[in-house]
Amino acid sequence: MIESTFSYDSVEMSPDGREVIILDQSLLPAQEKFLHMTTSEQVFFAITLQKVRGPIAVGLAAAFGLAVSLNRFKANNLKQLETEFIRIKRSLYINRPNTATLLCLMDRMEACFFETKSKIEPKEKKSIEVIKNALLAEARSIKLEDVKKCQSISESGAELINRGDTILTFGNAGHLATARYGTALGPIYVAQQKGFAPKVYTCETRPMLYGSRLMAYELNQAGIDVTLICDDMAAVVLSQKKIDKIFVGADRVAANGDVVSVPGTNGLAIIAKHYNIPFYVLVTSDTLSSDAVTGDDFQIDESPAYEITEMYFSKPVAPKGIKVYNPSYDITDSSLVKAYITDKGVFKKPEQLKNIISDDTISQSV
Amino acid sequence: MIESTFSYDSVEMSPDGREVIILDQSLLPAQEKFLHMTTSEQVFFAITLQKVRGPIAVGLAAAFGLAVSLNRFKANNLKQLETEFIRIKRSLYINRPNTATLLCLMDRMEACFFETKSKIEPKEKKSIEVIKNALLAEARSIKLEDVKKCQSISESGAELINRGDTILTFGNAGHLATARYGTALGPIYVAQQKGFAPKVYTCETRPMLYGSRLMAYELNQAGIDVTLICDDMAAVVLSQKKIDKIFVGADRVAANGDVVSVPGTNGLAIIAKHYNIPFYVLVTSDTLSSDAVTGDDFQIDESPAYEITEMYFSKPVAPKGIKVYNPSYDITDSSLVKAYITDKGVFKKPEQLKNIISDDTISQSV
Repeated sequence: MIESTFSYDSVEMSPDGREVIILDQSLLPAQEKFLHMTTSEQVFFAITLQKVRGPIAVGLAAAFGLAVSLNRFKANNLKQLETEFIRIKRSLYINRPNTATLLCLMDRMEACFFETKSKIEPKEKKSIEVIKNALLAEARSIKLEDVKKCQSISESGAELINRGDTILTFGNAGHLATARYGTALGPIYVAQQKGFAPKVYTCETRPMLYGSRLMAYELNQAGIDVTLICDDMAAVVLSQKKIDKIFVGADRVAANGDVVSVPGTNGLAIIAKHYNIPFYVLVTSDTLSSDAVTGDDFQIDESPAYEITEMYFSKPVAPKGIKVYNPSYDITDSSLVKAYITDKGVFKKPEQLKNIISDDTISQSV
Repeated sequence: MIESTFSYDSVEMSPDGREVIILDQSLLPAQEKFLHMTTSEQVFFAITLQKVRGPIAVGLAAAFGLAVSLNRFKANNLKQLETEFIRIKRSLYINRPNTATLLCLMDRMEACFFETKSKIEPKEKKSIEVIKNALLAEARSIKLEDVKKCQSISESGAELINRGDTILTFGNAGHLATARYGTALGPIYVAQQKGFAPKVYTCETRPMLYGSRLMAYELNQAGIDVTLICDDMAAVVLSQKKIDKIFVGADRVAANGDVVSVPGTNGLAIIAKHYNIPFYVLVTSDTLSSDAVTGDDFQIDESPAYEITEMYFSKPVAPKGIKVYNPSYDITDSSLVKAYITDKGVFKKPEQLKNIISDDTISQSV
């Protein structure tokens, strides 16, 4: 059985169900600071300020936030509890392509609320506690399920890694971005535990520098031989035959296998095809969309210009007021993907993905 | 006839031949400061600190530096003058792939020195002045020739631009990087003067941010409609059919048409081919190497790690001591190039390039 390489998870709930604890990713790699949050507003800001990020970690933080906030609410009756639940749920409603998991989990928590409520005697003295505890338990179940999904992806993905392989990664799809282990990085940790000594190149992933700030950080912490490059150097290392395979995560996958991910994923996949390097997408099965038939069904929104011109820099690096195009995602055509590594199996053909879109798969389109 | 869009050149010599004047590119876009340099040491540091950059601008700065330093030297006799000339020339000897032009120009200045010396009467009172003036004149000729080469490239390249076209650029190949006008950007200025209203997307070009700091700066100053993107977003704008053609410069071109340029050029060319967008390389004819048969004949050196992990950032963005791979160049295969736009013509087939490698072409291999 796979063990965690890390002594902490990036998103946790305290045993008493009164705190959401996250590692503040916005401070990495300079500072390792854990935030103890008690309100849904704190969780909302942690998500929007990217203190926690990655679809799985974000969804989990929101589920914990909902359970913890409600647990702390002093309700006199069930009606009050329900009103507060709806308020908290709304306060955590963040609708972006990479929050499809979050929205799905909010609905799941709501279903838990009303299902539990329907089963209890409203006049019963303990009914409020019963619902609160059911939601805490549900949030814990969600995490456990996510951990198992990532575990399964990590083990399947590790089968693809040969002794001494060098893997190129892009974006942010490791332990920090998930419940545990990671998606794209999980197999690398398993390969390391097997003694296969995998080496990793990670692209810095502009503009948010997920690769340098987060993936290089956790790979380095895990004792993996990791080398950082700029995004525009991926073709250099591929042309020099330094890379055996490429592992990336994704925010969403369309029914035809087209992939929504951080911008640059698509360009990397094109370059990988040119050099005939296998390009693998590692995702949990609930990343698959039942609504989006192809990548064209996803709307690509834009992130703020300052991410490119100012963020992380000591002074602005572009002329004041310059026009900027900062797409939040890109779409990788399924024809560029060698295989999809999911918790429900490894699929070499995108049409096989349809079979694993189940009823419990997220129904929100992005 | 093409007019300059700018009121200044990035590299100038004062009319009295006693100063080299450059716009300090390391301070852009925040500050526009002209440096007045009087010694070859100042010019050497301006080049190594990238206060002046781009093969043409660097070569020109060195030629001016050599002429100005010698002009300021108080020699009692020709022997002293010759010793000083050799010392100055050595002090400017910077051997990197993008300084092939510089090395070539140093040799040309040396030839000028000894040719002039051979023609004069050593005892003649004014012989020292004659040589100093010959070198000042030679340096001015070099600039004039470079201006004409860029002019020719700009006019040929402009023929490729249709009304309303959007051009994607990468690296640094504009007015600032050359004697005037630019190579990759020159045609855009000509198209603008024709009233064709070209639009430009420029990649930031990590790690040195030539695209955001320099190209976006000069395009913006010239009133061109310019949009800045991260390097990893090039595939996004190409996939969205926002780009009609791609113009890039180069440091060196092998005899078979393989291109040495800033890292990322190759990746961009691969993505351009995938989307069937024409990829043009715009270079002066002396960028062609007579020694390098293919791109494999070029040695790719590495730049310092801090360029990726620290430079321009307010604090380090990667874990301390992380391994970094920072290649100074990459090689673009000639099969990815639609055409080479040079001052000696437009060549659609790389094998045509051989015909324009003349005796005056740089013989140093990189």
